[in-house]
Amino acid sequence: MIVPSLLLEVGNHQVEVAETLIGVGRFLVIFVAARALAELLVRFQLPTILGELVAGVLIGASGLHLVVPPETHAELNQGLIRLVSTLSAVPSDAVQPIYDETFPILQGVSTLGLYALLFLTGLESELDELVAVGAQASTVALAGVVLPFALGTFGLMAIFQVDLIPAVFAGASMTATSIGITASVFGELKYLKTREGQIVIGAAVLDDILGIVILAVVVALAGGGQLEIGPIVKLCIAAALFVVVALALSRTAAPAFDWVLDQLKAPGEVIVASFLVLCLCCFAATAIGLEAALGAFAAGLILSGSKRTHAIQTAVVPLVSLFATIFFVLIGTSMDLSVINPADPANRSGLVIAAFLFVVAVLGKLASGWSFVSDKPTNRLVVGLGMMPRGEVGLIFLGLGTSAGLLTPSLEAAVLLMVIGTTFLAPVLLRLVLSRKTDVAEQPA
Amino acid sequence: MIVPSLLLEVGNHQVEVAETLIGVGRFLVIFVAARALAELLVRFQLPTILGELVAGVLIGASGLHLVVPPETHAELNQGLIRLVSTLSAVPSDAVQPIYDETFPILQGVSTLGLYALLFLTGLESELDELVAVGAQASTVALAGVVLPFALGTFGLMAIFQVDLIPAVFAGASMTATSIGITASVFGELKYLKTREGQIVIGAAVLDDILGIVILAVVVALAGGGQLEIGPIVKLCIAAALFVVVALALSRTAAPAFDWVLDQLKAPGEVIVASFLVLCLCCFAATAIGLEAALGAFAAGLILSGSKRTHAIQTAVVPLVSLFATIFFVLIGTSMDLSVINPADPANRSGLVIAAFLFVVAVLGKLASGWSFVSDKPTNRLVVGLGMMPRGEVGLIFLGLGTSAGLLTPSLEAAVLLMVIGTTFLAPVLLRLVLSRKTDVAEQPA
Repeated sequence: MIVPSLLLEVGNHQVEVAETLIGVGRFLVIFVAARALAELLVRFQLPTILGELVAGVLIGASGLHLVVPPETHAELNQGLIRLVSTLSAVPSDAVQPIYDETFPILQGVSTLGLYALLFLTGLESELDELVAVGAQASTVALAGVVLPFALGTFGLMAIFQVDLIPAVFAGASMTATSIGITASVFGELKYLKTREGQIVIGAAVLDDILGIVILAVVVALAGGGQLEIGPIVKLCIAAALFVVVALALSRTAAPAFDWVLDQLKAPGEVIVASFLVLCLCCFAATAIGLEAALGAFAAGLILSGSKRTHAIQTAVVPLVSLFATIFFVLIGTSMDLSVINPADPANRSGLVIAAFLFVVAVLGKLASGWSFVSDKPTNRLVVGLGMMPRGEVGLIFLGLGTSAGLLTPSLEAAVLLMVIGTTFLAPVLLRLVLSRKTDVAEQPA
Repeated sequence: MIVPSLLLEVGNHQVEVAETLIGVGRFLVIFVAARALAELLVRFQLPTILGELVAGVLIGASGLHLVVPPETHAELNQGLIRLVSTLSAVPSDAVQPIYDETFPILQGVSTLGLYALLFLTGLESELDELVAVGAQASTVALAGVVLPFALGTFGLMAIFQVDLIPAVFAGASMTATSIGITASVFGELKYLKTREGQIVIGAAVLDDILGIVILAVVVALAGGGQLEIGPIVKLCIAAALFVVVALALSRTAAPAFDWVLDQLKAPGEVIVASFLVLCLCCFAATAIGLEAALGAFAAGLILSGSKRTHAIQTAVVPLVSLFATIFFVLIGTSMDLSVINPADPANRSGLVIAAFLFVVAVLGKLASGWSFVSDKPTNRLVVGLGMMPRGEVGLIFLGLGTSAGLLTPSLEAAVLLMVIGTTFLAPVLLRLVLSRKTDVAEQPA
């Protein structure tokens, strides 16, 4: 957070020093841990996002207690308290309150990172290229959303007597597909331009849209504490309209955006104008009762039709590298992994739920590979595996559900294990399957 | 700030919606106003930073009350309260508390922007090129710091009976020179590579170092409420050592930084590694009792020796465009311009102080143009005018002094007018003088 102190209030100089040390120190801990684990996982050809998540668990409330979100009520690491207290001359029992008071700034920055990431995802959606495999991709996306959602929600309610809202949310969190992880594995193995690669990427984009609409609906409804048919229909229509308008605007508004940029003369015009579009879309989404996250994604979709997408990407990527990392690390820090410790008999049912979610998450997406009709030979196993990793999209669901208090600790841990498991398993299995079939690679779609 | 709500706490859904609308709306107001005025000023070939400042005054506590820092105790615009209350269904008297509670996130982000800007300033210091005009530049820098500081501080105390600490702070705020503004005017008129241009840029860089050391000392001492010789000497030595170590590290540590970057494989390595160096330097500066701002500048100096400065710049510039803008706008929002309304007789003395500061600020820097010995013909008026604009550096002083409560409202307004006046006057006068002498332009230094 870096010293809001001086800019915040006339305060005790020692307190300001402590705030600075805590704010800067927290950034240091987060980035050293996240980077170290990301570098490790990259060397095993695994997604860096897993490293950021595990880094969060290691430094967080289930680990070293160096970064503890106030809502976990975990105590700060004693060594850290002593260090800050010694360097700033603030009494040691004042360190935790200062720590808690400055934490919202870190969370605000991490939310900025989340929206920047969603904006970038929207921006990178190449809508035109997906039309060629549109029919197959739509079927795969729909099957990949409906199967895990229905199986997960009803299974949790029928078998495990989970309440409606948490069951719906856990089900919804299984609908995601991470474009980033699948695209990077396919790209690495030169499989991106094959028929399977195009279907999976197309389905993943549609999946993002469907998933984020489901998210917007579920979070908005959960705010009311119950699910009723009337508001669901209204919100679904609002969300669908919002996305349709965004898609229409990406054809018509993007040229206007480019024209405005051409008129601007003060420097920094690309990032400032993009940020304004992002804010406008977030405001509009919130004002009509949807999640601001949907607005961020829609802003990216709208600008994906711009001539300047490359410049926008260049400007936004550093924001994502810094702040989305904080978002993923913070998810790890707030996880209570003691609820899945198998040594404690009280946790057995939680572990069974986690295993159930994982199996449904794997089978639901695998089955989507067999959901479409095709007149050309297509490796359905590759399509199913490509749809499997939940990655950052699953984590965004988990993060929003956790902070809205929609999930029990054991369900939170189960969803986290499901996300980690699928994100880990998919690249490993894809490499195994594809490396046997390198002869089909790079056939045009 | 964009909805920290969802990530912060289990809360009332309406309150979360209101937080999102306020956070996103505040960004919209800030960037629309800042951009509109920046675009206007650019067309008159004036610095955009003036536009950001004036935008802040217009939307802030002295203007429309759309962005009001809680410490100004100004009431939020009634129309804004009604809009948020209607859209979020939160009672209208709850809007201001939600607004105030979420404001620190905006201030935290603006501090990030300040540090990114100082980091960039350090990064862009081309130390080697300055050695050629080293002697002249050092004399100009020293004279340009000592004259306004001494005249300002003693004048305020002797003529206007201002207390020691505010007088020292106001004096210190006059020592700054904005590299950015001078360099852009010189660059535009193809005057950057002349002897005068090189001397001014060299002096401005040294001025930054001197000014930020003065700032570190003044703020640290003001925390104690009084000025004593012992701690001043200690802090000056610490600050000087800190800068010397940073300069030494820019030769030795930068290659190590490059080597580490070469080893990193996960994406986003340039911005994350730079941010880690920034945090480390801020932490070190704070731990030894200096301003974190000095650490941010030193981090940039250290990395100015890297092979990757261009990549670092590309990644940091969008952060500066977004967040430093917020910093400058916020300074404008917190200004109480009613204290300089000439219609109110109680304000006359404040206006006289403002006029005094402005004259000292102009003459002190102009005189520095005649402070050096030179064996070659040099246009001393151009050097003096080039040193005049306080720009962003003066504003950083003002922002830190205001938030530390070191200045009275009328002194704050006087310093603001001094910064605006010199920043406005310098480019106008430079263009007048230089356009008459285009025949000497682009003679090598």
